[in-house]
Amino acid sequence: VSDAPIAARIDGVAGSSLPLLDRGLQYGDGLFETMRVVQGRIPLLDRHFARLAEGCLRLAIPVPPHAVLEAEVAELAALPGVGVVKIIVTRGDGARGYAPRHGTTRRIVLALPYRAWPQAWHRDGIAVRWCQTRLGCNPRLAGLKHLNRLEQVLARGEFDDSNVQEGLLADSDDRLVGGTCTNVFARFGHAFCTPALDRAGIAGVVRGWVLEAEGMGASMEVREIGRERLAEADEVFVCNALRGIVPVIRLAGPEHTWPVGVLTRALQMRLAAAGIGHEVGA
Amino acid sequence: VSDAPIAARIDGVAGSSLPLLDRGLQYGDGLFETMRVVQGRIPLLDRHFARLAEGCLRLAIPVPPHAVLEAEVAELAALPGVGVVKIIVTRGDGARGYAPRHGTTRRIVLALPYRAWPQAWHRDGIAVRWCQTRLGCNPRLAGLKHLNRLEQVLARGEFDDSNVQEGLLADSDDRLVGGTCTNVFARFGHAFCTPALDRAGIAGVVRGWVLEAEGMGASMEVREIGRERLAEADEVFVCNALRGIVPVIRLAGPEHTWPVGVLTRALQMRLAAAGIGHEVGA
Repeated sequence: VSDAPIAARIDGVAGSSLPLLDRGLQYGDGLFETMRVVQGRIPLLDRHFARLAEGCLRLAIPVPPHAVLEAEVAELAALPGVGVVKIIVTRGDGARGYAPRHGTTRRIVLALPYRAWPQAWHRDGIAVRWCQTRLGCNPRLAGLKHLNRLEQVLARGEFDDSNVQEGLLADSDDRLVGGTCTNVFARFGHAFCTPALDRAGIAGVVRGWVLEAEGMGASMEVREIGRERLAEADEVFVCNALRGIVPVIRLAGPEHTWPVGVLTRALQMRLAAAGIGHEVGA
Repeated sequence: VSDAPIAARIDGVAGSSLPLLDRGLQYGDGLFETMRVVQGRIPLLDRHFARLAEGCLRLAIPVPPHAVLEAEVAELAALPGVGVVKIIVTRGDGARGYAPRHGTTRRIVLALPYRAWPQAWHRDGIAVRWCQTRLGCNPRLAGLKHLNRLEQVLARGEFDDSNVQEGLLADSDDRLVGGTCTNVFARFGHAFCTPALDRAGIAGVVRGWVLEAEGMGASMEVREIGRERLAEADEVFVCNALRGIVPVIRLAGPEHTWPVGVLTRALQMRLAAAGIGHEVGA
């Protein structure tokens, strides 16, 4: 699958390039959403739009008009071969200082093919390892899907090993934050837990969906998970809006294994039915 | 002065736009240098190039060929009206995941006009205030002039007040790191001190130049400066490669004043003679 976008719109106009003075390039001054497209439709679209709007408010970037963005996304999602739509919103042009004086927004919408993870990962689970890269704490940026992602790039650069599929990130106090491109849930008894993201990390839309899942036979809780405590979990999964829910069955060095959890499987199938992730046999 | 660049080169080709999949936009995956041009020449050019090369090494981005970059920069610096040349180096294209697998570099060179700070600021000094935004700590990124600058954007957005010219940034342990777009030096007796930048902050080229200044009658030291301790300083200045050295004479709320220091003035004149900052009467 080529990297090239199938189509792109910049402020509603077809194009493939960006003004060099865009603050997204100059300073990472913007936000993004990466959304799965299934048969022309986007699962959890409302959650993506809500997160984008919240991010714009927190960064004081004018929110793109909802109807305009929705129409652009729908148009691109309907194109043949599109499996992912990515939205980037930046604070427009300006390369002469950090002051965010521009009251402008630039919106970029990219239509891309989908690159599936192997179905075996969804069925049998994946292996993870701890990254040495730690996430810096900044409450003003925590939770946002902003464009400053060098920490994730460095963390992801730590492994290129077919035996490890995702890296886990801790903050400077040795608390789990998430994976390099996923959120993490771990079940301890009757509580399915995921870390608070008020100091670091990205609040994924699937994380939000899982936290609201009802009738699972477990409570969904935002709770601190110390690095050492993860091995005590009964089941673990990672999730994001492209891959859905994927069981974690192994921690590499220090070694630890978990079973594919029954509740993980149930959540996975429920989310797959909503369009995100493979349907796999229970 | 317009924001538009006077000229731009992307990988050596004249142009004004960037491929949308550039990782500089997608993830802030790159570095930059902003350099003063004086009569076609760039003061401290070797320091800028050395910092850029070090940043590329630390981020595992292939370093642009020195001779090629030097020729491009020289060509743009010689154009009429150019007062600033900005280099941006990114990891090239790639929007499908954080993994930094691309072994490519994209180099962008922008020629821009210079926007002077008022000469009175250089002569009489400026006022600063503490920003509420704290800098997150990340040793792997600390010191680098990378493209993830949302913390600076948020901090700079805290003031839009003609009575305050620069904001001071502390880390989460209440230690001074620097200004939003400057490094900070404070003299305590015979020691001119600037904070270590091994956890946060940008290691400015003028900071490096000051630290190597000899025969000033003070030792130049990298030393922790607690937030409360700054008021005990005998003189304070901020510096960067566009503005040179600018005395700080006032801290706003909590109020404190410092005199324009004799050593600040001496360093300022020495750096102005090298082309950065105004020549001001002693």
